[in-house]
Amino acid sequence: MPLRIMQLGLGPIGLLTAEAVLGKAPGGQMELVGAVDVDPSKVGKDIAELLGADRPSGVVVRGDANRAVEELRPDVVLHTTSSFLERVAEQLETCLRSGAHVVSSTEELAFPFERHADLARHLDAVAEANGVVLVGTGVNPGYAMDALALAATGVCTHVRSIHVERVVDASRRRLPLLAKVGAGLSKARFEERAAEGGFGHIGLLESMRLVAHALGWTLDRTEESLEPVVAPDDVETKHMVIAEGDVAGIHHVVRGFVGDEAVLTLDLQMYVGADTPRDSIRVDGEPPIHLQVEGGIFGDTATAGALVNTAGVVHLAHPGLRTVAELPLPRAFGTTPGDHPVIQ
Amino acid sequence: MPLRIMQLGLGPIGLLTAEAVLGKAPGGQMELVGAVDVDPSKVGKDIAELLGADRPSGVVVRGDANRAVEELRPDVVLHTTSSFLERVAEQLETCLRSGAHVVSSTEELAFPFERHADLARHLDAVAEANGVVLVGTGVNPGYAMDALALAATGVCTHVRSIHVERVVDASRRRLPLLAKVGAGLSKARFEERAAEGGFGHIGLLESMRLVAHALGWTLDRTEESLEPVVAPDDVETKHMVIAEGDVAGIHHVVRGFVGDEAVLTLDLQMYVGADTPRDSIRVDGEPPIHLQVEGGIFGDTATAGALVNTAGVVHLAHPGLRTVAELPLPRAFGTTPGDHPVIQ
Repeated sequence: MPLRIMQLGLGPIGLLTAEAVLGKAPGGQMELVGAVDVDPSKVGKDIAELLGADRPSGVVVRGDANRAVEELRPDVVLHTTSSFLERVAEQLETCLRSGAHVVSSTEELAFPFERHADLARHLDAVAEANGVVLVGTGVNPGYAMDALALAATGVCTHVRSIHVERVVDASRRRLPLLAKVGAGLSKARFEERAAEGGFGHIGLLESMRLVAHALGWTLDRTEESLEPVVAPDDVETKHMVIAEGDVAGIHHVVRGFVGDEAVLTLDLQMYVGADTPRDSIRVDGEPPIHLQVEGGIFGDTATAGALVNTAGVVHLAHPGLRTVAELPLPRAFGTTPGDHPVIQ
Repeated sequence: MPLRIMQLGLGPIGLLTAEAVLGKAPGGQMELVGAVDVDPSKVGKDIAELLGADRPSGVVVRGDANRAVEELRPDVVLHTTSSFLERVAEQLETCLRSGAHVVSSTEELAFPFERHADLARHLDAVAEANGVVLVGTGVNPGYAMDALALAATGVCTHVRSIHVERVVDASRRRLPLLAKVGAGLSKARFEERAAEGGFGHIGLLESMRLVAHALGWTLDRTEESLEPVVAPDDVETKHMVIAEGDVAGIHHVVRGFVGDEAVLTLDLQMYVGADTPRDSIRVDGEPPIHLQVEGGIFGDTATAGALVNTAGVVHLAHPGLRTVAELPLPRAFGTTPGDHPVIQ
């Protein structure tokens, strides 16, 4: 029996995720049974139309998530509506109570046990009581700077420290990401808004806490820094022009200390014009490991991939609020070797 | 409570594994409670003596595995006695019946469901009946060419094919490995012994089957090739001299086909003098992923690391004969951030 998937949230990532589910082989391991968004311009349309596909999929976008989960009874809800846990807690709870596992791109959910300890306890109890799993994942947090960093230590007898670096060329990414990294702002405006907490990659601290927790490490303290990356010349992208001296993106670093030593460093650079995008994980350990993904992991597709693939294994974890460190080894789910299937 | 570990088998890998357990912080997450080997020259000695350590560990090598597990009741047995499942099945069964999880370096155990289907079924039943987990792992099989290859697909929405390449400089490795790859033999002698099945990396086919199974792929057929790598010049190693034209090691390749397409390729080169050791995983998928470990993963330490780290998470899997794909995401277990602990 294929896994019955409902997509909740049809922003850019939600649409990619729905597309990935629809792209699975017909009669295969998963099928899309529902799609939900609050946007009135999307409700009532066949999701294939939103994806620019020729043939209707038969899945019509609904506006009411509560009714949708009650009527459709999906096995797994793929949830992509917000980065912030407090905003989505009620949505998550509704899905869990319907008996669906929930795999969410909410960045703060990747490791919510410090920033939102009470809410995490509550959601854990709801999930457990309903015999289902709730987990936050995506490419980052959820993979590039945490799960993959942990996996890199999988054969180490000692680990002294881990240094993770992710460099993303923001110009290749979707428009909301450009706004998130402040691309195109003057330096003064960036700093004004940064002081109000308006920037920074949501979930970087969560990734670090997830790594520390899974390694059984207790950090004495954490440090966080956020600086603008300034365009050295005028840069033109598909979406905007950034003038020389204006902000091209962010350089966001978190560090975890034991005593005076930074034992965990997560260094994220997301800016327009980054010319050597990469993912690099250095484990100072025995054996030492330097793992790299050449050209970096392309984030938009990868987040959809992380969600869809996690849907395939989520039932194997113990019910409750879990992290990716408690799920089986990640792997692609429901793929067809050889040629890519086309959307039906 | 620290995990109580018994080391069964004190060859080069077993000693490294015992050393890794003894190297964990005292009062920490695991402790060595027993060590067993059949070699009369080892029995009765403190294992610290075998490791060349100054201070006794208090763990004296025993010769009788059955009595050892009955008396010591370890939580986990780390098993490193042979590559071949039929030779070790009885040992494994004894340990499982004592109520211990077993993490074994037996290469054929990494995915035994085809080569040894009946035996696999039997061991699965024994493990399940005793509420414990049996799993085969190590650096290869168990990590470099299978678990890490799967993890590389963890964010892919499509996977068309996977190409894994591992190049190992055999001169850096332990002596038994040199013998295993035929280093120093004439080409004629190599081919004679290869025809009798005397060479080749045990477990390469197992790695490929593990990857296919975890992806839900059915292979139409598999191909295997084994060629000697010939020394282009005289090569001198710590252990031997290899004359120009003699065998420096092996080039062992397995391929898995769907139709006419090789959708899985595992290409392993282990030879003396390999000047660019590396681990490389190319996923032809969406997004494409090219993951590399610079300089390769140093195998001896890494196998010990894989065993010790798996011991830390094995209880989280469902009882029975499992594969690494069914265990949680790999990660180092019981490590101390900052400086390395010294053996007590």
